[in-house]
Amino acid sequence: MQIGLVGLGRMGGNIVRRLMTKGQHQVVVYDTNVKAVADLASAGATGATSLQDFVKKLSAPRVVWVMLPAGKITEETIATLRKSMESGDTIIDGGNTFWQDDVRRAGELKRIGIHYVDVGTSGGVWGLERGYCMMIGGETETVNRLDPIFASLAPGLGEIPRTSGREERDPRAEQGYIHAGPVGAGHFVKMVHNGIEYGLMQAYAEGFDILKNANIDALPPAHRFDLNIPDIAEVWRRGSVVSSWLLDLTAAALAKNDTLENYSGFVEDSGEGRWTINAAIDEAVPAEVITAALYARFRSRKEHTFAEKILSAMRHGFGGHTEPPKLGDAGKKAAE
Amino acid sequence: MQIGLVGLGRMGGNIVRRLMTKGQHQVVVYDTNVKAVADLASAGATGATSLQDFVKKLSAPRVVWVMLPAGKITEETIATLRKSMESGDTIIDGGNTFWQDDVRRAGELKRIGIHYVDVGTSGGVWGLERGYCMMIGGETETVNRLDPIFASLAPGLGEIPRTSGREERDPRAEQGYIHAGPVGAGHFVKMVHNGIEYGLMQAYAEGFDILKNANIDALPPAHRFDLNIPDIAEVWRRGSVVSSWLLDLTAAALAKNDTLENYSGFVEDSGEGRWTINAAIDEAVPAEVITAALYARFRSRKEHTFAEKILSAMRHGFGGHTEPPKLGDAGKKAAE
Amino acid sequence: MQIGLVGLGRMGGNIVRRLMTKGQHQVVVYDTNVKAVADLASAGATGATSLQDFVKKLSAPRVVWVMLPAGKITEETIATLRKSMESGDTIIDGGNTFWQDDVRRAGELKRIGIHYVDVGTSGGVWGLERGYCMMIGGETETVNRLDPIFASLAPGLGEIPRTSGREERDPRAEQGYIHAGPVGAGHFVKMVHNGIEYGLMQAYAEGFDILKNANIDALPPAHRFDLNIPDIAEVWRRGSVVSSWLLDLTAAALAKNDTLENYSGFVEDSGEGRWTINAAIDEAVPAEVITAALYARFRSRKEHTFAEKILSAMRHGFGGHTEPPKLGDAGKKAAE
Amino acid sequence: MQIGLVGLGRMGGNIVRRLMTKGQHQVVVYDTNVKAVADLASAGATGATSLQDFVKKLSAPRVVWVMLPAGKITEETIATLRKSMESGDTIIDGGNTFWQDDVRRAGELKRIGIHYVDVGTSGGVWGLERGYCMMIGGETETVNRLDPIFASLAPGLGEIPRTSGREERDPRAEQGYIHAGPVGAGHFVKMVHNGIEYGLMQAYAEGFDILKNANIDALPPAHRFDLNIPDIAEVWRRGSVVSSWLLDLTAAALAKNDTLENYSGFVEDSGEGRWTINAAIDEAVPAEVITAALYARFRSRKEHTFAEKILSAMRHGFGGHTEPPKLGDAGKKAAE
Repeated sequence: MQIGLVGLGRMGGNIVRRLMTKGQHQVVVYDTNVKAVADLASAGATGATSLQDFVKKLSAPRVVWVMLPAGKITEETIATLRKSMESGDTIIDGGNTFWQDDVRRAGELKRIGIHYVDVGTSGGVWGLERGYCMMIGGETETVNRLDPIFASLAPGLGEIPRTSGREERDPRAEQGYIHAGPVGAGHFVKMVHNGIEYGLMQAYAEGFDILKNANIDALPPAHRFDLNIPDIAEVWRRGSVVSSWLLDLTAAALAKNDTLENYSGFVEDSGEGRWTINAAIDEAVPAEVITAALYARFRSRKEHTFAEKILSAMRHGFGGHTEPPKLGDAGKKAAE
Repeated sequence: MQIGLVGLGRMGGNIVRRLMTKGQHQVVVYDTNVKAVADLASAGATGATSLQDFVKKLSAPRVVWVMLPAGKITEETIATLRKSMESGDTIIDGGNTFWQDDVRRAGELKRIGIHYVDVGTSGGVWGLERGYCMMIGGETETVNRLDPIFASLAPGLGEIPRTSGREERDPRAEQGYIHAGPVGAGHFVKMVHNGIEYGLMQAYAEGFDILKNANIDALPPAHRFDLNIPDIAEVWRRGSVVSSWLLDLTAAALAKNDTLENYSGFVEDSGEGRWTINAAIDEAVPAEVITAALYARFRSRKEHTFAEKILSAMRHGFGGHTEPPKLGDAGKKAAE
Repeated sequence: MQIGLVGLGRMGGNIVRRLMTKGQHQVVVYDTNVKAVADLASAGATGATSLQDFVKKLSAPRVVWVMLPAGKITEETIATLRKSMESGDTIIDGGNTFWQDDVRRAGELKRIGIHYVDVGTSGGVWGLERGYCMMIGGETETVNRLDPIFASLAPGLGEIPRTSGREERDPRAEQGYIHAGPVGAGHFVKMVHNGIEYGLMQAYAEGFDILKNANIDALPPAHRFDLNIPDIAEVWRRGSVVSSWLLDLTAAALAKNDTLENYSGFVEDSGEGRWTINAAIDEAVPAEVITAALYARFRSRKEHTFAEKILSAMRHGFGGHTEPPKLGDAGKKAAE
Repeated sequence: MQIGLVGLGRMGGNIVRRLMTKGQHQVVVYDTNVKAVADLASAGATGATSLQDFVKKLSAPRVVWVMLPAGKITEETIATLRKSMESGDTIIDGGNTFWQDDVRRAGELKRIGIHYVDVGTSGGVWGLERGYCMMIGGETETVNRLDPIFASLAPGLGEIPRTSGREERDPRAEQGYIHAGPVGAGHFVKMVHNGIEYGLMQAYAEGFDILKNANIDALPPAHRFDLNIPDIAEVWRRGSVVSSWLLDLTAAALAKNDTLENYSGFVEDSGEGRWTINAAIDEAVPAEVITAALYARFRSRKEHTFAEKILSAMRHGFGGHTEPPKLGDAGKKAAE
């Protein structure tokens, strides 16, 4: 079927490519980056020169997939699009949008007859090859109408064994996409997915940190080990309980560089970890691990917190303790 | 090669079977459970009627794999075995032994010429089919001599893609086993493996809990979702960043029972999570996520903690607050 | 000066009494609870029979202190009050209002010339005697005009030693009240105050829990202690680093009942702990302790979490582990 | 009564002074620091020139209080003392010794008839003036015999109000010392005291950090506050729920320096926080807050953890994300 795609970055560009190769869909593309448009046009897409031109090149009822960094730019693009679009058209937001923004936005668009679908899309830079895992929110009729699009983007069964006992259940899940619920549900599920991802990453990270520091001077000599971290990451990939795709990626990074000295240790967070905690709090669900994972990233971006200075001030107050003026020997040795 | 195996439970029995089928090894077996011995004898192993008989049926230099629940029973069995064994023999401890016990025990055995190898073995009930991921500690010469055993038990490359950049590295890792270091290193690495496992499990668990509680009455109606948890677990298995073997298992359990009402919620812990935290503390490595995962299990096994009563007592003290005498409506609704 | 007070519960009633005794202020009072109005009227206040009557009994420019449970009831009361009030009047919200609601509400009232002041009020049921610690947000002129009110309610220097080095600083702080900043700042500071309170309480609670469980059977006999918890709480009140008012309250509760069996263990939370975490996340400040304290309360209100069942399902999946069907012996012993 | 004191540092020296002034006790003192001995001799103590000389100057049955940094130096000093001491003598360890070392050591000394008492001593540099809060472990008869010493060192009732309901309970607790149980119990209770202290400190620290960062650029202008941190610390000292001695110290430090820029942010930990976590784990008590407080200190002493680099490596692997090479703008602004 025909579909328009706005936003041709890392994710958007690959989605267009997969739509054309897997599904023989006709794709109209637009981006402010003219080169990105030209590249995809030469690969078979129809390029547009403006959002207006883009809408014009689509036949009603139009389907537009917006694939932009969440937030202001997505908001503005949809505001512009809706001016040229008509009742019966559909806008899909495939970015990492906050699900409460979906709920609000869908309500606004509904008043002018435009359908809205939110798609949480996982797969990163690997999606072109592996397919995209999609969590979809929207009206049932609209989501069903777009099924050819989702079916083409999804990974499909692949070589992953089927789960027994699913014979009576929705077959889309094992193809790699689900209709999670009404508008917002797609990004809500994707948000929690990312929250879990934070926790998983931090679990591995802490484990490798413990392995790495197993040889520090503070330990008794008989209890010290110099461990081969890349080999450990590799061995866990086969037959162990902790095997996963994230571990595969870790093993690959360590195979290239044992010490990961090519990374600064500064770790960013996108909004989804934060929103997951907010949701947990709204629901009164204890989410210690996901929260701790988020906080570890916050801490990684500071030289020192004010909190730590408060601690030192108290220790000086009650015990006369004076902390080292900067990273002492112990700290330097322990630091990576 | 010939090997003796003591302890024919879930893990031990399958190890014997894999040794016989994959590697054509001659296996002498012993367990206090006579039926377990008979079953394996009928499958081709040589059964023994006592530890003394067991040692007698092995040719020097003997190799004995002890596969018992860690702790007292392992300690006692090795104490009995060493009386009948001779200099040049080797004892392998494949259970979940605390690595500092390995260090001590190997020192004691070394004095009478017996080699000791610790093998952290992952794979659970699936090892017979998938192979066992092994982390091995011991003297290089001894570990190398036992290589045919490890090679037979390990999963091998299988269908898991190779990690690029490992050409110059130890090829055993991608077969699914490593020689991690001197005695103790095997169980140390396995211990951290299990610590990571705790963290991974808790990350998924929290995420699913947030999804499950997305429809509670305390939320505004427009922000509530009734989500299909089994479908979500399934869809993440394909193309998503959180795909893993643990997720496969979760999807399988949810396919059988949406609400998991067949589980009480009481979660045990083996020692390895605790030892991992102790190691982190000895190394001054912050391990928030692994620790929180362990504490969640502790908490799951109590109706209420004394800590919680202390909180209520304080709240009553400063604010006159009176907590509900038992689970109130909010609590009942939120509880599973 | 003259002031009106709406909301004569535990806090509001005592505020009225303190205003009349400490400050000789004229107080007009209103509550839907007629008895509460009558009681205070007989103590010297002017009782009102409706919000309209209440406003009428105040002379312009009016000062109205609203002391109601935060949320809907406060919102509605202010909505009703503003209809009868005039430009130049002032509304003080002394409840536990979410500071972003203050910001919004003050903006709305400003348009009709009504000043708005938010006062975070700490002191609980003890404020009548000890005075109230107040954190105030609002325009400087308005806050200054109300100073006689705040000065009467505040604890004053009392017997608490002065902090040296504060000679050049705002003298109100050591009287027990501050003008924290523009509207919202008062409740923001009070919110963080309560967040800290959660963390402090949980720190004590965990410590007492460790003391309480020092005699469990799982410990080696030589490492078990039967400790006298009430005596320990008492001894720490004098000369120790952990002495505090919260500890005083704990010691008092334990003196009455060693085991606190009069408390269920179910612990509620007001909104302020949650908002503190939300603020920490917005600021990217790691707040592990305050968050963990909040989550412990969430957990206290559930029999079991869905998360815990997910853990058991995984454990069964990979290891064939079967958890006890309900609280086993270990659990029962450990449970309070 | 007569008592000998070894170790005349910050704590030991003040203990000697308080024993002489409050209790008129005869104190024999020894330290390798000759000046410390001379100072106390000129204040009325009897100085000794060696451990042998020290023991000789005490009359049997001797009472020796060892007040040294825990660990090796305490162990060695007691090993030397026992050679010169006799059956019936008593050794008191008043340092921060690991309680399991007390249990072992007392057993060894018992064989030669020497009594052993462990005293957890809180009070820091303020003890001389405020008195020391003491938690004592040992045989009842021995502890009772030493009562005049403890009574002199303890703070006494002071101006702190008595807890009602304690009429039938051990009166020593409200004087500021308790006989907690057999050997080890004193240091066990002190250990948990320090664990609580870590948690309390971190709760305040996080709260002040949230207040401090309430004005960062990432927040919407209408939701930013420039707060006066020293005034807030001061105001909470009077009438608020979070008032405590630790808060008094914090207010004093902030009165001197608003930004605490005189502290590096590097925070050390003594062993007691670590041992508290170990005890919690042995008891299966969830101790989230105390643990998080310890980990925050671990983290404060590193530039970056290996864990953080693992996170970045994964993020690069699945999303092509490249972290800033060093502290970016966001980080610099947020960093103190």
